Amino acid sequence: MGAIDIVGVKKDRVTRDLTVDAQSDVHADELIAAIKKVKGIRVRTVSDRVFLSHLGGKITIENRIPLKNRDQLSIAYTPGVARVCRSIAQNPESVYNLTIRGNTVAIVTDGSAVLGLGDIGPCAAMPVMEGKAMLFKEFGRVDAFPICLDTKDVNEIVRIVKALAPTFGGINLEDIAAPRCFEIEEKLVNSLDIPVFHDDQHGTAVVVLAALLNALKVVGKKINKVRVAVLGVGAAGVACTKMLLDAGVKDVIGCDRTGTIYKGRRKQMNYMKKWFAEYTNKDNVKGDINDAAKGADVFLGLSGPGLFPVEALQSMAKDAIVFALANPDPEIAPEIASEHAAVVATGRSDYPNQINNVLAFPGIFRGALDVHASKITEDMKQAAARAIAESIPERELFADYIIPSVFQRKVSTAVAEAVAEAAVKSGVARRPHSEKITKLVVCSSL
Amino acid sequence: MGAIDIVGVKKDRVTRDLTVDAQSDVHADELIAAIKKVKGIRVRTVSDRVFLSHLGGKITIENRIPLKNRDQLSIAYTPGVARVCRSIAQNPESVYNLTIRGNTVAIVTDGSAVLGLGDIGPCAAMPVMEGKAMLFKEFGRVDAFPICLDTKDVNEIVRIVKALAPTFGGINLEDIAAPRCFEIEEKLVNSLDIPVFHDDQHGTAVVVLAALLNALKVVGKKINKVRVAVLGVGAAGVACTKMLLDAGVKDVIGCDRTGTIYKGRRKQMNYMKKWFAEYTNKDNVKGDINDAAKGADVFLGLSGPGLFPVEALQSMAKDAIVFALANPDPEIAPEIASEHAAVVATGRSDYPNQINNVLAFPGIFRGALDVHASKITEDMKQAAARAIAESIPERELFADYIIPSVFQRKVSTAVAEAVAEAAVKSGVARRPHSEKITKLVVCSSL
Repeated sequence: MGAIDIVGVKKDRVTRDLTVDAQSDVHADELIAAIKKVKGIRVRTVSDRVFLSHLGGKITIENRIPLKNRDQLSIAYTPGVARVCRSIAQNPESVYNLTIRGNTVAIVTDGSAVLGLGDIGPCAAMPVMEGKAMLFKEFGRVDAFPICLDTKDVNEIVRIVKALAPTFGGINLEDIAAPRCFEIEEKLVNSLDIPVFHDDQHGTAVVVLAALLNALKVVGKKINKVRVAVLGVGAAGVACTKMLLDAGVKDVIGCDRTGTIYKGRRKQMNYMKKWFAEYTNKDNVKGDINDAAKGADVFLGLSGPGLFPVEALQSMAKDAIVFALANPDPEIAPEIASEHAAVVATGRSDYPNQINNVLAFPGIFRGALDVHASKITEDMKQAAARAIAESIPERELFADYIIPSVFQRKVSTAVAEAVAEAAVKSGVARRPHSEKITKLVVCSSL
Repeated sequence: MGAIDIVGVKKDRVTRDLTVDAQSDVHADELIAAIKKVKGIRVRTVSDRVFLSHLGGKITIENRIPLKNRDQLSIAYTPGVARVCRSIAQNPESVYNLTIRGNTVAIVTDGSAVLGLGDIGPCAAMPVMEGKAMLFKEFGRVDAFPICLDTKDVNEIVRIVKALAPTFGGINLEDIAAPRCFEIEEKLVNSLDIPVFHDDQHGTAVVVLAALLNALKVVGKKINKVRVAVLGVGAAGVACTKMLLDAGVKDVIGCDRTGTIYKGRRKQMNYMKKWFAEYTNKDNVKGDINDAAKGADVFLGLSGPGLFPVEALQSMAKDAIVFALANPDPEIAPEIASEHAAVVATGRSDYPNQINNVLAFPGIFRGALDVHASKITEDMKQAAARAIAESIPERELFADYIIPSVFQRKVSTAVAEAVAEAAVKSGVARRPHSEKITKLVVCSSL
């Protein structure tokens, strides 16, 4: 029992606020049921610390300079601000230094594929986008703002994001259903000169590659010699496969609900699966995940709960690597997987080796914004994956420690550095790596 | 001379950062010219405190709850956040309590009529919108975020703002050129169930009415007996006139570049001016501002510098009231106006009686958000104007003090209270006045 506060008194009743520590959700339910049985008591509302933490939202917009007197008002607003506006009108690039644009990212969603909850709409997606904004700030010092759109039309989303661009230095697409997300991303990348990044695809892919690089070191296999069976060919499955191929993997077999994806398959294809059929499955393996996994060195699950049978795992090559990333319930229980595999990773924080995008996106945007990159190139993503992998010294690597914890702060800094450097090498940086925004000197004609 | 910092050393040169206090812009220019003449010196860049204050932008997005460990991560993000999302999906109204939406306003512009600078575009408008966001926070505790749109198409702006609505609890339209601004506002008010407010129109109108109510007390005239000559029939002129009529003024004559606006005028009309012709100028006065001002009790200028001739002022009724609001250069110099008028107000902070929107919009949105109003009604605006006027006790009123200073913090609180109360009376409040967002108890099925 924590506290009892009286929050309202009326003629015939008193409203009390009871704070209680429960051992579990079940225990909480028992307590509520018991209280409801007390005669003369009516339980008005029940809340818990998760809901209480969300009251009023999780982010806030604050002033970076004071506004307490006339002098400060004349600097931040009229008349002083007019000179700054004129300076940007004359020299459009200076908007990145003189406004929030240089450090601000839009987290854009249509609420159509939120977590494992599906199409819950833009309003219900807000808590996730606010949480994402918090992660951007905490791990990347990036100002990110939720943009939850009340439309699912590809062209309208593209038009809106293009029109919003003057406020933002980057666009993080989030929780937009496949295959719409591919088209939106492609159109935006081609029409904007600021980074556009679909985190569900590329953030996941970066961390998966990082984990794979370290897992391969643990089992002593070469990346260009392994066969990877991918279960789930949605946004994340496609992006992971592309990154693995770019990193040197030569042999991938993809598998969706319909079965393996091969050249000539007719059922349940879309343009991404056609790409998949063309660039993977060189032996044209037909069948299901059991056929795809046979002899494979790596299983990468980005599908649903319990979809990877233990028999399939047993048919994999020696020292198998299993990434069962369906959340919260993996494709195979980690306890069972670790009996047969050399390395097991999941998306969960309560097992070893959590594959968590938080390791990637804050550092990737930090690095891209620092050098004012016009886009996020393949090289920048590969550099991010290597930086995450290399944040664990090789001598410390073992089967239960192929990926660092999200709370190892040095990871996002290392990612940012590597991404900024790769951006300069890729030729997409519009500002030298060392010259951070806070150090910039502003040119102005007085 | 403030300080000298060495900021770079190369083989053949040293870069030094000199901080100097100048007496004026002219003095600063003289100093720069003098330094440039020193042999062996190259002036790389020159900045000043206004530009330095703008570096990196003026607002920041911060986390309201901590994110330092696993437990906090599981509350703010996965897995805890999923229950909050589901709760909003089941009960859409709860988005106002469980996310930032209940306290967040979009400051929407197309950059087409920024300050007195005109159509400088969405990027160059950013510093003004950030400044506006600061004012919202400082004076209204409202989280406001700039949305600078790269389009001037009325229907596209309307579509975009409608699509953005799930993130915002209110829309503040800003610095959008007339007559486009009228159409955008009207369409948004009709299609959204959150407050939509074009500050250049209604914020100005509220403060003008507040000032007029007090000025009339000073000169001892009744609002329903005065004639008002309005110079400038753009967004602000139209909105002020509507509010004055609603407040009881019976006799207004409007005047634009073409002359007075009267029934039957053909030249330079638009649908707003047609409205004007119908509802004002009951005597059908033709001519220019000289004709409009003759015998008028009040001159309201929302036009351009020096457009109100002193002869016109001299022809006004006894104890004339002059609001010369063109900024930075009023329609008539305040020094000259005060020789002939009983009360003079301007838009400038360096003369008595500054008509400043900051007195209105933070409190108006604060009040509207507090009661979760679906729109901002005429009654709410009238209540705001009265609250501003009444913030100066009648015994303290005199010709140079008809409007409070923007730094009188009690004003925005009084405005918020009055607006919230009026919203409840208007029937647009969806939450009782007393039950503020921070006090709300959240209903949730555990």
